[in-house]
Amino acid sequence: MGMTMTEKIFARKAGLSRVEPGQLIQCPVDLVLANDITGPPSIQEFKKIGRPVFDKEKIVLVPDHFIPNKDIKSAEQAKAIKDFARAHQITHYFEVGRMGIEHVLLPQVGLVAPGEVIIGADSHTCTYGALGAFATGVGSTDAGAAMATGTAWFKVPASIKVALSGKLNKWVTGKDVILTLIGMIGVDGARYQSLEFAGPGLSSLTMADRLTIANMAIEGGAKNGIFPVDDIALAYLKGRVSRPYEMMHADPDARYARTVTIDLSQLEPVVALPHLPENVKPARQVTDVPIDQVVIGSCTNGRLDDLAQAAAILQGKKVHPRLRAIVIPGSQEVYLEAMEKGYIRTFIEAGAVVSTPTCGPCLGGYMGILAAGEKAVATTNRNFRGRMGHVDSEVYLAGPAVAAASAIMGRIGLPEEVAQ
Amino acid sequence: MGMTMTEKIFARKAGLSRVEPGQLIQCPVDLVLANDITGPPSIQEFKKIGRPVFDKEKIVLVPDHFIPNKDIKSAEQAKAIKDFARAHQITHYFEVGRMGIEHVLLPQVGLVAPGEVIIGADSHTCTYGALGAFATGVGSTDAGAAMATGTAWFKVPASIKVALSGKLNKWVTGKDVILTLIGMIGVDGARYQSLEFAGPGLSSLTMADRLTIANMAIEGGAKNGIFPVDDIALAYLKGRVSRPYEMMHADPDARYARTVTIDLSQLEPVVALPHLPENVKPARQVTDVPIDQVVIGSCTNGRLDDLAQAAAILQGKKVHPRLRAIVIPGSQEVYLEAMEKGYIRTFIEAGAVVSTPTCGPCLGGYMGILAAGEKAVATTNRNFRGRMGHVDSEVYLAGPAVAAASAIMGRIGLPEEVAQ
Repeated sequence: MGMTMTEKIFARKAGLSRVEPGQLIQCPVDLVLANDITGPPSIQEFKKIGRPVFDKEKIVLVPDHFIPNKDIKSAEQAKAIKDFARAHQITHYFEVGRMGIEHVLLPQVGLVAPGEVIIGADSHTCTYGALGAFATGVGSTDAGAAMATGTAWFKVPASIKVALSGKLNKWVTGKDVILTLIGMIGVDGARYQSLEFAGPGLSSLTMADRLTIANMAIEGGAKNGIFPVDDIALAYLKGRVSRPYEMMHADPDARYARTVTIDLSQLEPVVALPHLPENVKPARQVTDVPIDQVVIGSCTNGRLDDLAQAAAILQGKKVHPRLRAIVIPGSQEVYLEAMEKGYIRTFIEAGAVVSTPTCGPCLGGYMGILAAGEKAVATTNRNFRGRMGHVDSEVYLAGPAVAAASAIMGRIGLPEEVAQ
Repeated sequence: MGMTMTEKIFARKAGLSRVEPGQLIQCPVDLVLANDITGPPSIQEFKKIGRPVFDKEKIVLVPDHFIPNKDIKSAEQAKAIKDFARAHQITHYFEVGRMGIEHVLLPQVGLVAPGEVIIGADSHTCTYGALGAFATGVGSTDAGAAMATGTAWFKVPASIKVALSGKLNKWVTGKDVILTLIGMIGVDGARYQSLEFAGPGLSSLTMADRLTIANMAIEGGAKNGIFPVDDIALAYLKGRVSRPYEMMHADPDARYARTVTIDLSQLEPVVALPHLPENVKPARQVTDVPIDQVVIGSCTNGRLDDLAQAAAILQGKKVHPRLRAIVIPGSQEVYLEAMEKGYIRTFIEAGAVVSTPTCGPCLGGYMGILAAGEKAVATTNRNFRGRMGHVDSEVYLAGPAVAAASAIMGRIGLPEEVAQ
């Protein structure tokens, strides 16, 4: 019996000939991530162990959630990880202004390579599976312990094969793929399982698509999402990762808990209605929902391709007078590239806010919090009740094209309604 | 006995042949301003009067302090002024993304003209005196009443003549002029008086300089600061203000409470040390202060000239690794112009954050709040204890050149230390 991608990564890293779903293993980690919210409690746990850091090159600290500091509490949190980074000479501490949203930043700067095991005290750490790594979110206790030991305990997940065929149509992106999938399987459809993406449809998915898809694996309850490494991934890795890495491919006779098949050519732009990512409907069926705010960005959709799509729609148009549109490049690099390509100008001329990179409104942090009764279309990853503000506000999840169209229309909009 | 500029404006507006310092007058107002903090209480007061708005063209509502909404409370505040603006068809409501910091925005869009009487529920409303208007901050009660009545009560202030001669040296700007003045007279040196700027030195002051100087008149305790309208002001007004306006000039025999003289050529870059704007020292005397954060922006120094000066210093340089630098264009227009001129690229390449226009950190709102023990150099207007965050943090006020130099040096820096 063969192994899935995730099983093969674990077996190799743990020094075992094979692993089985459900097996508990202790495994070395290649990277431990924490942010300004989860860093301080992780550091507290680390201190209890009383050892030095296991490897100052393999701990990553990114202040990105409530920064630039939104209040005194967040200032103290940011200072805590900064002080820790300095005290332990952590190589990969990313100061405000030289950073990005962690899950946009880490792949971009080459901190993620195929076959690696990455844990992060943030649920969307699963993003890195787009590059053939095993990556998952852990609690601050596990992250803190791993900072000292360089290892973590895992229960090997069973895998769901997501077999993709066909090609995405115009204005349909990775966000629509993952939302459609979550709509099919539900928010606990992959609970403690691995979503392993496969099939000929992969070749039409850009890295931005894949990062978005893997990012939201957790929204289907998955432990991780993972993509095989192909030429598209290798092209992305080139110039970013110079250390050796091992590309894992699922064995032909790997065992899957089940297979879900999706024909990409049949997908259309979708929206996840409040208050769960599984409440997925075609956008065209919900164009009567008036919108107060649009957010384009986040670890899910804050990459250059996402901004490019939004800019293509907003170019020469104006944001609806009643509506706030907030665009948040995922990193300083994305910001610069978007400026170079004229997207930032397009957004500002359209009447949108362009924020510095931050998680900001996604988790109700700042930079666009909703009042009671307000509704937002957001390219973020969660639309739980009160996630972006008041308990009586609503978040509609969508891709950048629908979000940009909605910004123009003042209601949930379709790209084809407004695109040139 | 002649009259000062402020006296002449009041006499004309109130329909009186002359007014005397100390006289109580009821006077029509040309503009009533409120923001997302002061708007909601102003609206409550307005509602008590039970009349319609006096003129929907003469009320200005600018959400700028805690926007894009930093939390649920600020979201409710922003929604309150938006709903009011819609209900009363207020012409000059500036939605998030189509705005700027109020005191950068209003002159820029032509809402301020010489000879006008402007009140705003914000203490830095005095900024507009740079264009020869009488402008002062009022409480929300007065602003709310004026929204209904179109008038306000004033006690005519006595005037201090600030006689300027000479020309500013390189890297010395309006911020150094006003800080030096406040250092001379103290934070209550002009209490309930008008600071009337005069003399041949005016001709070397740009509009950005003047707006910065008038902006901080309140920090010397003044009711208002006011500049005569000359060719520089007229050039600024051209293309912005098309309605007729009256330029007021002080009578040669106007009566002043006192005269303060400043030779601009003798000024150097200064810093106001914690915790009062009057604690002014030459920057070169305090270069040993290590700095954690630099803020360049605000209603005081968020204009294109300010960003140009900061960019000239930061060009090709890097922000000190230990330090956060936050640049906040004062309006979307300033942002676009700064992008066009390459300043935004310079800031991002240097490792600075570029924020969307907001008051943000200046008043401890968000976008750069200080933790305990942290020190900031800021181009803002107040360095009161705890103003930018924790009660044990410190703010050093300076102009954009010193702020930018400090960002590079990681301590209070001098432009000549780092400039090309």
